Amino acid sequence: MTRIAILGATGYTALELLKILARHPHVEVTTLTTRQETRPHISQIHPSLTGQFDLVCENLSPAEVGERADLVFCALPHTASMEAVPLLLDAGCRVVDLSADYRLSDPGVYEQWYGHVHTDPTRLSTTVYGLPELFMDRIPGADLVANPGCYTSTAILGLAPLLAAGIIEPTGIIIDGKSGVSGAGRTPKIGTLFAECNESVTAYGIGTHRHMPEIEQVLTDVCGVNVQVAFNPHLIPMDRGILCSMYPRLKEPKSVEELLAVLRRFYADQPFVRVVDHIPATKHVAHTNFCDISVRLNRDQLVVFSATDNLIKGASGVAVQNMNLLLGFDQRMGMLPC
Amino acid sequence: MTRIAILGATGYTALELLKILARHPHVEVTTLTTRQETRPHISQIHPSLTGQFDLVCENLSPAEVGERADLVFCALPHTASMEAVPLLLDAGCRVVDLSADYRLSDPGVYEQWYGHVHTDPTRLSTTVYGLPELFMDRIPGADLVANPGCYTSTAILGLAPLLAAGIIEPTGIIIDGKSGVSGAGRTPKIGTLFAECNESVTAYGIGTHRHMPEIEQVLTDVCGVNVQVAFNPHLIPMDRGILCSMYPRLKEPKSVEELLAVLRRFYADQPFVRVVDHIPATKHVAHTNFCDISVRLNRDQLVVFSATDNLIKGASGVAVQNMNLLLGFDQRMGMLPC
Amino acid sequence: MTRIAILGATGYTALELLKILARHPHVEVTTLTTRQETRPHISQIHPSLTGQFDLVCENLSPAEVGERADLVFCALPHTASMEAVPLLLDAGCRVVDLSADYRLSDPGVYEQWYGHVHTDPTRLSTTVYGLPELFMDRIPGADLVANPGCYTSTAILGLAPLLAAGIIEPTGIIIDGKSGVSGAGRTPKIGTLFAECNESVTAYGIGTHRHMPEIEQVLTDVCGVNVQVAFNPHLIPMDRGILCSMYPRLKEPKSVEELLAVLRRFYADQPFVRVVDHIPATKHVAHTNFCDISVRLNRDQLVVFSATDNLIKGASGVAVQNMNLLLGFDQRMGMLPC
Amino acid sequence: MTRIAILGATGYTALELLKILARHPHVEVTTLTTRQETRPHISQIHPSLTGQFDLVCENLSPAEVGERADLVFCALPHTASMEAVPLLLDAGCRVVDLSADYRLSDPGVYEQWYGHVHTDPTRLSTTVYGLPELFMDRIPGADLVANPGCYTSTAILGLAPLLAAGIIEPTGIIIDGKSGVSGAGRTPKIGTLFAECNESVTAYGIGTHRHMPEIEQVLTDVCGVNVQVAFNPHLIPMDRGILCSMYPRLKEPKSVEELLAVLRRFYADQPFVRVVDHIPATKHVAHTNFCDISVRLNRDQLVVFSATDNLIKGASGVAVQNMNLLLGFDQRMGMLPC
Repeated sequence: MTRIAILGATGYTALELLKILARHPHVEVTTLTTRQETRPHISQIHPSLTGQFDLVCENLSPAEVGERADLVFCALPHTASMEAVPLLLDAGCRVVDLSADYRLSDPGVYEQWYGHVHTDPTRLSTTVYGLPELFMDRIPGADLVANPGCYTSTAILGLAPLLAAGIIEPTGIIIDGKSGVSGAGRTPKIGTLFAECNESVTAYGIGTHRHMPEIEQVLTDVCGVNVQVAFNPHLIPMDRGILCSMYPRLKEPKSVEELLAVLRRFYADQPFVRVVDHIPATKHVAHTNFCDISVRLNRDQLVVFSATDNLIKGASGVAVQNMNLLLGFDQRMGMLPC
Repeated sequence: MTRIAILGATGYTALELLKILARHPHVEVTTLTTRQETRPHISQIHPSLTGQFDLVCENLSPAEVGERADLVFCALPHTASMEAVPLLLDAGCRVVDLSADYRLSDPGVYEQWYGHVHTDPTRLSTTVYGLPELFMDRIPGADLVANPGCYTSTAILGLAPLLAAGIIEPTGIIIDGKSGVSGAGRTPKIGTLFAECNESVTAYGIGTHRHMPEIEQVLTDVCGVNVQVAFNPHLIPMDRGILCSMYPRLKEPKSVEELLAVLRRFYADQPFVRVVDHIPATKHVAHTNFCDISVRLNRDQLVVFSATDNLIKGASGVAVQNMNLLLGFDQRMGMLPC
Repeated sequence: MTRIAILGATGYTALELLKILARHPHVEVTTLTTRQETRPHISQIHPSLTGQFDLVCENLSPAEVGERADLVFCALPHTASMEAVPLLLDAGCRVVDLSADYRLSDPGVYEQWYGHVHTDPTRLSTTVYGLPELFMDRIPGADLVANPGCYTSTAILGLAPLLAAGIIEPTGIIIDGKSGVSGAGRTPKIGTLFAECNESVTAYGIGTHRHMPEIEQVLTDVCGVNVQVAFNPHLIPMDRGILCSMYPRLKEPKSVEELLAVLRRFYADQPFVRVVDHIPATKHVAHTNFCDISVRLNRDQLVVFSATDNLIKGASGVAVQNMNLLLGFDQRMGMLPC
Repeated sequence: MTRIAILGATGYTALELLKILARHPHVEVTTLTTRQETRPHISQIHPSLTGQFDLVCENLSPAEVGERADLVFCALPHTASMEAVPLLLDAGCRVVDLSADYRLSDPGVYEQWYGHVHTDPTRLSTTVYGLPELFMDRIPGADLVANPGCYTSTAILGLAPLLAAGIIEPTGIIIDGKSGVSGAGRTPKIGTLFAECNESVTAYGIGTHRHMPEIEQVLTDVCGVNVQVAFNPHLIPMDRGILCSMYPRLKEPKSVEELLAVLRRFYADQPFVRVVDHIPATKHVAHTNFCDISVRLNRDQLVVFSATDNLIKGASGVAVQNMNLLLGFDQRMGMLPC
């Protein structure tokens, strides 16, 4: 059994990691950390786990974690992650980092969007971006995998095949993102209170959301041309789910059938991407690691829809996919079939 | 007191009409109709009205309605409305029609989008489109007002000033619409069951939604150039509210401040449009007749946000605005101040 | 115009107060306070009020408030209120206190349930409890009115007539309370985050909720016998609304019709209590000052249902009712008819 | 592989059955039925299953089903089930019936509560009631298992240990039930539309809900004394989940610790009942087969809380538990660990 640690065990992504790992036959969670000093039992933090994990959350150093775990899921906030990751790697752990700290390959871009100087800049350019559907061959041998952002994966999976095929213009792609509230995390803020979000829809972070440069970097990497998007996220009154409605410009007219065929070929071997005929709904992928993709034409305007569960395929599910690839397991191990 | 009838009293728009009219000092609701033969009391249909209206819903002919009412709100389904309206007008009533039957001025366009031959085609070109912020001077003398669609008003109010000022390109305008479920009406369907809509977001009617030609017709009328939009509606798990996130192309670079100034000038005298600095949220306009509008720039991509309560400013509130204008009252009469 | 101040203007009850007062013809809100030093405009705190109130929220002393206002709504947290109220009264203001500080007449009971020594104990026994349906004649001449708790009013209005008529046993009354999340206030906490409350129902505060002694005190006062209840509140995934499902024991068998008749007689002159035939739903009273009450028999077990909007009839609506009575206005002034 | 059929494949319980069975290593779903003649693919009915089951829903006779399946989940409406079940048994199938038709052992009680004469009355008294935590030894050899109602299991699991131990009075037990909307099924009705249920809580079926006699029958069977309850269900704006807040009378004073100990002993060997210290929330058991139970004292009033997912432990999860017992598998097979 591979020994697993989760750093930052009190958040929603940690809860989902634990639910998936509880179904995994070949790993054992040995270590959970929190910055709280009270050593809460994990069932007090996440009562839904009652009876499944007999673990307390401890305030441990990376070195202490390294003694207890072979592979670490780092679910710390950004900036905290770049402090811990080098020490975890030094301690001999392999790391799947769920923060944003190692996603952007250019430290200048990181500083511009996150407002902090990166303290581990040399590692940025060599870190593997953990989106298995695109970078399957880079992941297995890595020590550190940067787990993608939730909007990021959802958007990229819808656009990459069409960009790679040269079917759509690489610039001016409008992405209207819609996310459930769990995407904002578990730290209490007025803006994510029930009585604020419920019965409301609004946009936020227009022009400043940090998933925008991440989407552009990865699509540019995949497609070999400079990709430029206008990413516009919205908050939807639901727990979980992301729908990206994306509006690229077709270079030449194509039918829906032709476009679906391109997508289906691209993902022919991918177990977690479903190219569907109907318009995806977040409910159809909730609690699963699936990304459902489809397209429509509104006269000559292409619309690409991509839906995920932001906590699973957008965070903890893909993290376990990455873990499975790092450890040589079938990437579906632990994941629900539907 | 002006005597008021509501045809189709069992739906959500009728309920909202009744709530507004209950606050109106100069009108009296005398007549409510339904196709049901059981003569239900309005409090049985809408228990929230208990104690306020002592009226039963009756299956009446237009002629019978004409004897009891001076002004009629016609909240019938499309095609039913075009049967009733000519008879109501013949009976001497003034009519605010909340259906889609008199919104499109071209019977060919109606047939194309609604799949029915229009049986009252000659009246189409002369019917006033009841969006007071744009057509204030046409409404007072009219006998028949076509009340706008909910998405339609929301989208038009955000775009019209920018089109009229020649600031944005009139074609290729992407409108990503987001609506609460009450917009789908009160007729039971699987798709609008709680357990289907809740915890989900999806799109529908891409390329086929009937508010698309309506938006184009009105904006073309207002701006004198052919306007073409790609309207893409989404269903949001909330009772009420519409947010349109709209992506037009700027002809020349403008700042957010310049754009807000254009909007503020356009609506300087309009009590129900609020051009706001923050990004609108549907919760801020819920249960009111306000339309909140703002803009953002995502690099050089303009985003126009427009939010309404689909049942009030998108239907029953604007219907009472139209009634007030028809009857010579202040258009705010009956409406909530915030 | 009577000059009004609201202390603690950033919360949900203040927002609802402002919405009601904006419709009131004879009062003017002149003063809003907050402990924040940044002097936010009220539209920044509550964007739905944009355009209606041109007021900033200031950090003012009670004496400063007294110079600007004739009547004060004190929407401070408990313990903060008992500091401010004596000074406001000294400054010549009349006060409607929405906190819990003056609801319990016995300082010992206050200390037991709230865990604080009451610093203004002598005023407790003389403060009027502001539930107009029961204490109409005590309110008009008062300087200080203790505005009732939300669960409290809802429960009391359902039970008082049956207790006063001697129809039900005064002890062992089970109250299963169900409240929307806004009842927990606007201070960020994990427990009231959207992603915690949504798609969940649970109970809280069993045996410790502070509305329990308040319910018992008021019902004992009204009925002249010692009333004892078991109040068990539950959190429901909705913004607003309270439903109390109450299970008293009938002294002798009664029919539903007899019981409804008792309730209807009791509230014959009350504009805000509706004794209805159907089972009340919180949606039917949302955004109104109504309390809907009905009864059912499950074999011989009586069930009394009482529903309110916790922010209106449960807080800000009844506060304005109290203000109207203090100022000699019709108690319906400012309130919505349905 | 055991061959499985599901009759009535278009509803929510069928969807949940399919999700569980997709994880089961030893069964294969071969047959799905519907009364629709259009032979829809199961992915059209339940898009979340896309890619997992390549089956169409067919209108088949019980005899045809019997040729294709060894074990049948009958998810038909009541009355339809009692027509099919005898024919399925004749065809050699073993049957788990999710309808109410075989739950009540007395045909007279069935007729009284369901308003239909039972057409297969002789089988009622011999049918096994499929609540494994209570009737584990009766199930394995059965041909027909009556799968319990959702409220029923939830209530019974909380009360049975305390009744069996003689700790609470067997009569006058008040059960305040709270259920998500999926419990009402997928047939479109006004009452379960999103815009009706959302932002509302109400009660229904007081004195007439058919789970009441079922609760009484089973508890009477288990405890050997006549049990009588007042069951009062409420509709909560959430997809799934049941919380029963139950108010029995203690025969003698007990502490919370003593009561929890009784519950823990009773369920010591049961993998799906978790006796927890905290108050259960439906979110903690959502999408799992767990029933979380706890108790509180409000002064001397005992409150028993029991929470399940109405579609899993309340329907399809327990149905698979029953299947596992019928087929000799570990009852946890296919179920999620948390």
